[in-house]
Amino acid sequence: MSDSGLEKLLNPSSVAVIGASLTKGKIGHDVLLNIKESGYKGKIYPINPKDTEVMGYKAYPSVLDVKDDIDLAVFAIPAPAVVEVMKECGDKGIKAAIVISAGFKETGPEGKKLELELAAAAKKHGIRVLGPNCLGFISSTIHLNASFAATSPLPGDIAFFSQSGALCTAILDWAVKEKIGFSKFISLGNKADISETDFLRALGEDPDTKVILGYIEDVKDGHEFMRVAREVTAKKPVIICKAGGTKAGAKAASSHTGSLAGSEVAFDAAFAQTGIIRAATIEDLFDYAVAFSYQKLPKGDKLAIITNAGGPGIIAVDAVERSQFAKVAPLAKETTDYLRGKLPKTAALNNPVDVIGDADDQRYKIAVEALLKDPNVNGLVVILTPQSNSKIKETAEVLVANRDDKPIFTSFMGGKLVEQGVNILQDNKIPNYRFPERAVSSFNTMVKYKNILGVPREAAKPFKVDKEKVKKIIDEAVKIGQKEIPEYLARDIIESYGFRLPKSVLAKDAKEASKAAEKTGYPVVMKIASPDILHKSDVGGVKVNLKTAKEVEDAFNEMVQKAKKAVPNAKIMGVLIQEMVTGGKEVILGMTKDAQFGPMLMFGLGGIYVEVLKDVSFRVAPITAREATEMIEGIRSVALLKGVRGEKPADIESIKDSLLRLSQMVTEFPMIRELDINPLKVFSVDQGGSVAIDARISIDIK
Amino acid sequence: MSDSGLEKLLNPSSVAVIGASLTKGKIGHDVLLNIKESGYKGKIYPINPKDTEVMGYKAYPSVLDVKDDIDLAVFAIPAPAVVEVMKECGDKGIKAAIVISAGFKETGPEGKKLELELAAAAKKHGIRVLGPNCLGFISSTIHLNASFAATSPLPGDIAFFSQSGALCTAILDWAVKEKIGFSKFISLGNKADISETDFLRALGEDPDTKVILGYIEDVKDGHEFMRVAREVTAKKPVIICKAGGTKAGAKAASSHTGSLAGSEVAFDAAFAQTGIIRAATIEDLFDYAVAFSYQKLPKGDKLAIITNAGGPGIIAVDAVERSQFAKVAPLAKETTDYLRGKLPKTAALNNPVDVIGDADDQRYKIAVEALLKDPNVNGLVVILTPQSNSKIKETAEVLVANRDDKPIFTSFMGGKLVEQGVNILQDNKIPNYRFPERAVSSFNTMVKYKNILGVPREAAKPFKVDKEKVKKIIDEAVKIGQKEIPEYLARDIIESYGFRLPKSVLAKDAKEASKAAEKTGYPVVMKIASPDILHKSDVGGVKVNLKTAKEVEDAFNEMVQKAKKAVPNAKIMGVLIQEMVTGGKEVILGMTKDAQFGPMLMFGLGGIYVEVLKDVSFRVAPITAREATEMIEGIRSVALLKGVRGEKPADIESIKDSLLRLSQMVTEFPMIRELDINPLKVFSVDQGGSVAIDARISIDIK
Repeated sequence: MSDSGLEKLLNPSSVAVIGASLTKGKIGHDVLLNIKESGYKGKIYPINPKDTEVMGYKAYPSVLDVKDDIDLAVFAIPAPAVVEVMKECGDKGIKAAIVISAGFKETGPEGKKLELELAAAAKKHGIRVLGPNCLGFISSTIHLNASFAATSPLPGDIAFFSQSGALCTAILDWAVKEKIGFSKFISLGNKADISETDFLRALGEDPDTKVILGYIEDVKDGHEFMRVAREVTAKKPVIICKAGGTKAGAKAASSHTGSLAGSEVAFDAAFAQTGIIRAATIEDLFDYAVAFSYQKLPKGDKLAIITNAGGPGIIAVDAVERSQFAKVAPLAKETTDYLRGKLPKTAALNNPVDVIGDADDQRYKIAVEALLKDPNVNGLVVILTPQSNSKIKETAEVLVANRDDKPIFTSFMGGKLVEQGVNILQDNKIPNYRFPERAVSSFNTMVKYKNILGVPREAAKPFKVDKEKVKKIIDEAVKIGQKEIPEYLARDIIESYGFRLPKSVLAKDAKEASKAAEKTGYPVVMKIASPDILHKSDVGGVKVNLKTAKEVEDAFNEMVQKAKKAVPNAKIMGVLIQEMVTGGKEVILGMTKDAQFGPMLMFGLGGIYVEVLKDVSFRVAPITAREATEMIEGIRSVALLKGVRGEKPADIESIKDSLLRLSQMVTEFPMIRELDINPLKVFSVDQGGSVAIDARISIDIK
Repeated sequence: MSDSGLEKLLNPSSVAVIGASLTKGKIGHDVLLNIKESGYKGKIYPINPKDTEVMGYKAYPSVLDVKDDIDLAVFAIPAPAVVEVMKECGDKGIKAAIVISAGFKETGPEGKKLELELAAAAKKHGIRVLGPNCLGFISSTIHLNASFAATSPLPGDIAFFSQSGALCTAILDWAVKEKIGFSKFISLGNKADISETDFLRALGEDPDTKVILGYIEDVKDGHEFMRVAREVTAKKPVIICKAGGTKAGAKAASSHTGSLAGSEVAFDAAFAQTGIIRAATIEDLFDYAVAFSYQKLPKGDKLAIITNAGGPGIIAVDAVERSQFAKVAPLAKETTDYLRGKLPKTAALNNPVDVIGDADDQRYKIAVEALLKDPNVNGLVVILTPQSNSKIKETAEVLVANRDDKPIFTSFMGGKLVEQGVNILQDNKIPNYRFPERAVSSFNTMVKYKNILGVPREAAKPFKVDKEKVKKIIDEAVKIGQKEIPEYLARDIIESYGFRLPKSVLAKDAKEASKAAEKTGYPVVMKIASPDILHKSDVGGVKVNLKTAKEVEDAFNEMVQKAKKAVPNAKIMGVLIQEMVTGGKEVILGMTKDAQFGPMLMFGLGGIYVEVLKDVSFRVAPITAREATEMIEGIRSVALLKGVRGEKPADIESIKDSLLRLSQMVTEFPMIRELDINPLKVFSVDQGGSVAIDARISIDIK
């Protein structure tokens, strides 16, 4: 963990407990006791101005009184005293601190101020701080329990970080009962300094951690979080339960894209793009965790089921068929032939293999061995219901003895009758689930991660674009404080990034208009050009299918007149005379900004598909070529682009190209706040290409 | 339970155990032992030709040797002997039997034959039979455990029937651990006679049963099941986990409706229509069961949350916001004012109410009392994570002492630390869930049931229709063995049921065609009329927008010629000259038959919405007016009917009327096998009404 920046936190040679107390029930007491009892091999310094000795350790009034170096300081003193002592820690040369103390941001504006002071003091002295307002930090690697948790975790290779300290105490207590062990157990607290991203990076490099779990409510720096997550998920599974945010959204958005986005959508996109597995519930988090911790990844998606009970077997198959990735393994003929010779006549030999209610351990053994040998099988779910003939303990032992590179998931269903068997499974790290659906969903998640590992992650190649031109337009808009870029300039911007536009000329009077139309070729579309008129249709500012010079000239005069009446002070630049594009499928491309992840791209079919059915997909920019494809494939109505009822398919490559160009644009110009290209008309593959009919761009003005 | 027909099974005065055995491990031994030990007060007769006494009871060689009446016979003898003994039972006048013996339908064709013989013998003698191939029957009401289960259930007011015997053993074992009790526990076995419907009826009338749970894989008689379920769900909640069938479907269907249906769709429709709550998993089944068993229904959908931990509180709120029915209760001002005075400054006073990590039982008491008093609150989720200051046992006692008409759901999260508290909650029947999401989903399900109870269930009023005409057409088709009704007759059929059709005349030659067109008014649509040509467009048999007599005459000749060439032996009746209907939204109405539930109606928007997006809804016919509305509201694209982008809404009442007419038609003519009305053009509300443009009907021919 050399470059994680958290070395002194993760691997301290010595720990000072600031506020170490003799009084039971005080946090300063519980923390020191935990450190003492956890078997930590480093030096321990209670800091406490009143006592000379605490729990057998020599106590010091201040860290400054300790002669030797101190690597880590754990704060268990009231919030108002923390900042001063932090400065002392700085003077002492301490490089890591855990601030357990509450009374900061979570208490209101004053606490928030205190937290900022704390962060500033720490930063000034180069101290990395976990917390404040946290339960602490536990490492099985170095046997250090620097927390005030009442329960110590079992050792294991699962790391867990949590933005909720109270959830930590519940999980610790629960995990002991379920015999789930941890390599690191981290309460993030208020994240004044160290964040989920720091731990993601550190745990990614931690050889003692096989699976990383997290509970978060937000991220501190979405961009950095994604960058680090991409690297870490390529090495080990990262499973996160993200809570909060369902209510959010509802920001006043003027674009389609903005109104359809929201923080949940952003997190879903960010997780999908970085390969983080999102757990819907805390229960799922640990279901998946044990699957990954205890077993190797399956080599494929084919699952076999063994059961001594028809019903639960059917339940399991249902779960496989409903799952996103798992498939019911078609057993090899050799397997069924073999089983036919070995199992009773009434046994079911296809998947699920039903060894029948009176199966003992030996019958399970036959089935387990045969299915693990079957090349069509990548994983096994073994279901047992307690029957009079069941040999539950022995069946568990059969599974332990036969474990293999292929993952095995069990569901020994029941209570007291199966307890002994479940204990054997847990002790030997075969993941057991109370109900078969959970076993199947864990296999499904392992397949999902296997697929994630197989995804190429190279960034998209940049297009050659006229960046200078765009910069000029945007700078000018910033200068004059114009939040909405006028349409004719918005057109210039996207054209500079390689979008094809309808031929278009700005006409300043009726004569110019008809001349432009002759040049463009009839029929034409006419649009009022004014920076002050956004909803052009509402003021009669759009006319289509104009076929003669007379029609164009009359339209010009009428439009300008109406526009002036509707928006008296509007500055009218003239009327755009545009080629009328016929044919093609209408899609919408858009961008809006998420508070945590920045620019988010949107894709959907135009018209009712976006407005009514809200059938759209999002990704955080910049996107890769593969992510562009995923965006297109991610809408329900994608079949309409591929051609239905004998239609030719639309030029999907052109959409992909457009999304990638848009991605580059919003990445290169972060001051773009919202954008809709609506519609982009996409032609059929034989015609090829696409034309951006209309574009709206708004920018951030301070 | 007077008219359930199962009195002697449910409440026998005496029980004979056929095959009662002295040998431990034999089913005949275990059953008798269970009956003996369960505290059954009736008479017990072991039947066994070898022994004179078993377990202290006098044994008899045959039921015929018993002098007194026997109400119930439990069979624990090999399958081949069952039929003979069943006949003896008949001679003895026994009216109820439980056949535990396996070796029937589940073993293959021979077993199936044996099962039919068993059913016939039982029927002949008027014996109601549970099983065969089942675990048995347990009643807490009469303290009778007539099963070979190794675990006896605790008493309670939940009834459970299961089509999987093995699942029963797992559930019994698990439920004891969770302290969940049962009024009746029933293993249905192969359902040779008594089915889920019989038990639904009986349990609906059982005063000792408050909640009915079921695990099924199919139903014996879909129609009767629905009839009974409608009655029972009006009295008490029925919660069913239905497994199997995801694979099914895939029957060769020629209609749109047929290709979109499937047994899962049928069960979903049947459950929705009868008010059965479908549990997705066995875990959900019991989550919901305890909620209903232990508490009163909430009076509304507003849920309040109390927590001592921010994270789990957020998780709970997320779950409420994602739920279908539950809402986050907006607390009354009096409540927050009161709490402000009583709780610490840092407590969160809005919903969720965070009493903060250091809350003891008294602080929970303040919050619980205040929220239960709040008129805006209909139910309460109380979350506790174990903290150093937590008084877990005492907090559980606070909840017990404060229980109330408003349902309380708890989530005491953790393992050993919370165990004592959880025990108190379970002993006092406050439903506790390992994670807050499950508590919320249980409240949500109670609200769902409350809503179901409020639904009016009156049948739709029949329309006056020309049933005779339809009968004649169908009879004729049956007579000539014609599975597909020709279009012009299909038109007659739906017209007879009150559908409006485009004006249409069958022309036999070109002259007749142009005359008909003059009468109808131009433009017209022309369609080849032949019973042998189903896909008219494929053979150039459809032309639209014909505007003159010449066009019509030319089209006639061309169409007939092409049709003859494409289908040489086709009988061509002529060409239909139809009014061309312009405007209106295209919807599709359809019907297909489900193997278990019979005619299923389908509704969707026409074209790509059906074909590509598969955005359709199903209900089992006959439907009520409310169900017709639910079908229309049940598609994702319903907004398109309500008018988007300034369009006028479509005449939804006319669609409803059409669905009800269709429902009546397929109910009155069960020989209709599949039907598509596609499209039905629905006009906007100001114009009103709808026109069926095309109809395809096929019938069952033996």
